[in-house]
Amino acid sequence: MLTTTDQTGWAMVVSVSTCLLLLALGASANGASVIRGDPVAFSGFKHLRVGPQSNQVSKYPYDEEWLSDVSLDHFSFGNNQTFNLRYFINLKSYSPGGPILFYTGNEGNLEGFAENTGFMFDIAPELNAAVVFGEHRFYGKTKPFGKDSYASVKNLGYLSSEQALADFAVLLDYLKNTRIPGAKNSSVIAFGGSYGGMLAAWFRIKYPHIVTGAIAGSAPVFWFENANVDPKSFSRIVTRTFERSGCNVDTISAGFAAITELAKTDNGRTFLNRRFALDKNSTINKAEDASFLQATLSDTMVSFAMIDYPYPANFLAPLPGWPVKEVCRHLNRKPSQVPEKNAWVLRSVLDLYYNYTGKAQTYCVNPQTCPSPYSQLGDPMGWPWQACTEMVMPMCNAGLPNDFFPANCPFNVEAFAQDCTTNFGPLGYSRQLLRPDWVIQNYGNTFEAASNIVFSNGELDPWSGGGWSTINERRGSLVSVILKEGAHHYDLRGSHPQDTDEVQQVRKAHLSEIKKWLAAENRFHY
Amino acid sequence: MLTTTDQTGWAMVVSVSTCLLLLALGASANGASVIRGDPVAFSGFKHLRVGPQSNQVSKYPYDEEWLSDVSLDHFSFGNNQTFNLRYFINLKSYSPGGPILFYTGNEGNLEGFAENTGFMFDIAPELNAAVVFGEHRFYGKTKPFGKDSYASVKNLGYLSSEQALADFAVLLDYLKNTRIPGAKNSSVIAFGGSYGGMLAAWFRIKYPHIVTGAIAGSAPVFWFENANVDPKSFSRIVTRTFERSGCNVDTISAGFAAITELAKTDNGRTFLNRRFALDKNSTINKAEDASFLQATLSDTMVSFAMIDYPYPANFLAPLPGWPVKEVCRHLNRKPSQVPEKNAWVLRSVLDLYYNYTGKAQTYCVNPQTCPSPYSQLGDPMGWPWQACTEMVMPMCNAGLPNDFFPANCPFNVEAFAQDCTTNFGPLGYSRQLLRPDWVIQNYGNTFEAASNIVFSNGELDPWSGGGWSTINERRGSLVSVILKEGAHHYDLRGSHPQDTDEVQQVRKAHLSEIKKWLAAENRFHY
Repeated sequence: MLTTTDQTGWAMVVSVSTCLLLLALGASANGASVIRGDPVAFSGFKHLRVGPQSNQVSKYPYDEEWLSDVSLDHFSFGNNQTFNLRYFINLKSYSPGGPILFYTGNEGNLEGFAENTGFMFDIAPELNAAVVFGEHRFYGKTKPFGKDSYASVKNLGYLSSEQALADFAVLLDYLKNTRIPGAKNSSVIAFGGSYGGMLAAWFRIKYPHIVTGAIAGSAPVFWFENANVDPKSFSRIVTRTFERSGCNVDTISAGFAAITELAKTDNGRTFLNRRFALDKNSTINKAEDASFLQATLSDTMVSFAMIDYPYPANFLAPLPGWPVKEVCRHLNRKPSQVPEKNAWVLRSVLDLYYNYTGKAQTYCVNPQTCPSPYSQLGDPMGWPWQACTEMVMPMCNAGLPNDFFPANCPFNVEAFAQDCTTNFGPLGYSRQLLRPDWVIQNYGNTFEAASNIVFSNGELDPWSGGGWSTINERRGSLVSVILKEGAHHYDLRGSHPQDTDEVQQVRKAHLSEIKKWLAAENRFHY
Repeated sequence: MLTTTDQTGWAMVVSVSTCLLLLALGASANGASVIRGDPVAFSGFKHLRVGPQSNQVSKYPYDEEWLSDVSLDHFSFGNNQTFNLRYFINLKSYSPGGPILFYTGNEGNLEGFAENTGFMFDIAPELNAAVVFGEHRFYGKTKPFGKDSYASVKNLGYLSSEQALADFAVLLDYLKNTRIPGAKNSSVIAFGGSYGGMLAAWFRIKYPHIVTGAIAGSAPVFWFENANVDPKSFSRIVTRTFERSGCNVDTISAGFAAITELAKTDNGRTFLNRRFALDKNSTINKAEDASFLQATLSDTMVSFAMIDYPYPANFLAPLPGWPVKEVCRHLNRKPSQVPEKNAWVLRSVLDLYYNYTGKAQTYCVNPQTCPSPYSQLGDPMGWPWQACTEMVMPMCNAGLPNDFFPANCPFNVEAFAQDCTTNFGPLGYSRQLLRPDWVIQNYGNTFEAASNIVFSNGELDPWSGGGWSTINERRGSLVSVILKEGAHHYDLRGSHPQDTDEVQQVRKAHLSEIKKWLAAENRFHY
């Protein structure tokens, strides 16, 4: 099992530091156990932790149900295996004939998506709608091969976006014709955030006879080489978000550089180990070990940008509102001439993210020796598998002026493939399974013939660099919405007293768009 | 290998006599070898033989080429095998930037489709277009597992419409970006007849970013249980075509009944064996054997309806123009009181179809003992495999007044599944692989969000019963065209001096529609 990452795996992590393989990497705060000790879910590619579930469960309740006899392989007929697909359902607001609001589950436990997509629950009463969340195969409790689901490429091979969408098509056929009373002609509106947003958009594109329209939140549908994405845009947007929040980007860049320099000497390493409170399992012992700490810092900063919401966030370790601004209070000065000072200031990144409650004593950042944060994240190798097959999303850091991260451009797909082979080779992986062109070949990159999709992206969110459009525009019934103060699919979250005016307007616009789609279908009039 | 059909298989054939499993069943004219001795191809589900190739090869020339490294499984990642895909290409009329006219190959050798879709070649010069035919995996020379392609369900499993369309998507990506000069932004128009027409329409629906529009000839896209097709419509339309051509349907119905009756006695069997010139391998020895002869007659009449073209057809055994009218010259009288007379007149069906040149001496109709006509048809078990997995198209005969065939309604999907299990069970088939609902779940049945497709159907053609519309109509850019004097995808054939005015008008309309699509893409203006 690949629950720990070996040296090469880590090297991969460093060379494409913001790459999707970094689903859950990051420091762990030993002593507080804020990551590992609690159930976590995530709605982004990064370690975007969500919760807590206590109060939201009561606000957004659902029943857990299962659809049995789902084909393992929808597109070939050499394997007759079937499995059970989990879904959540809430019919409290539903009237017969009303629409089905359907969340296209992505790479994590379904609970996380149900609890962090309150928007669907919020609008259900006005639409007399059913609310359903479908779990993505191989995640959460939907395991086609049970505990062996991740044991071999032969099994893992059935984890793909195409098969997941086909699962949802079959599920909706069942929901409409069997499960939900009077829903035979009900319209379906798909929702999803991040990879789930890609799935929602693709669901409408590939199954328009099932899905009337889609709200695709923060969906990087163009983050592929053959869609001409700029691999540097991810780190550039992270940098912009920090800069706009008051950070001095030169200081952060100098901090990363100082870590590299300090790790070259005994004194420097001693300084780093002490100042960053590094756990005995992740002591920096040689120059190369600097990359562990740098990667953890990078990933944490990425997470801050993704979850830069205006109100104290419902995370396991509670964060203040506008957390990037909070971090930047410590990173707003000019760089020093003293490397130790430059490195030191970055400690505040870890402290705020992992230790907001002050319980953490030390941090563990070395994936070779620390307990893997992967192991606590449900299905830690699911997204890496998808990234090593069809979801090949190129990213790299260029350094200043593009970004404040240690430079590692260009992104090299063959090096990436090599790392995938190192990681998944023992399970049966080979180079031919990496198909970087397939997503765009299959789903397209112009959406010329598509209709009834809202793509929303937030300027604070690094994933917006691969979204449908960087400006607000409408093309037919395709709409691009940009939230200037939006982090990762902020608009899909439930309403909150401290919501920005902007997100409130965007949610109203979403609802208005949905009503238009429904009215056009002549199934539900307003 | 399943190159012969066993008793149960034949029973299946009889119980759903017009079902698609009957790809190539029919009498063989021993002595003339008109079926078995020559290369054949087919563009319909039935034994629609096409050719000869001599003069058409020069009129519609092409180069044979191959695309290597095509993924065997586009939608899962458990198998890294690749294969070589064959295609034909003609760039004679092409100018850089011009469109690609692409035929979505269906269930047979690619040669047959290239030689019988002259319409594409005919319009290429006016459009400055490239002409390309893509071969469907597992047919013709495109064999992913070589001679073992049909050896097991494990191999055959990869024969599906979804995988074939993905092959074409990858092929077009290659053609546009690598193979055809200046085609990077070229539009693609898909063409196909019969199952190929379904593929053309579905190609536009599922890959609109690759395919600008589709001409779907005689595509029974709704011939599925969950699209509410009337299983009796196929035999009803055959009957109508014969009636409109001057046949007395009561006489034909009485002929079938007479065969049943005569087969019950020694004298009657002797009469049938002699009057139908049955080969020693297919002597009727007991009452049940009547079904062999009846099935052969039924299938032959179906073929006549499908190929009821106005000019002497280019078939291996040349047929006159309007062949159904020719048959009906022998079947236009009222039924007799004498069973022998009623049975006797049906002999003309075999004579005209298999023995137009007068060379046949005897007919072999018993699939258990005669050489299988399947074995000469390229990939005889390909379509049966597809019919036993996703292409489950329900059909049955109701007898008069619906049709003149021996009644066998209703269509029973479980009995059908049982026959599939009998046939493919030895290769690893099981009931779970029959998924009658999947085609409509996957491709849809309303096409509400689809655009730029012409569905053409001919009233003479029994397959029109499951086509997009039974009347001429336009919905947005979806067009339904009905040819009153049209047999199976007549409109896709090359122009002919004896073409009807109607088909000439329809072809003009197709071209006009294509020009509209191209102009709207701003890539090719008129």
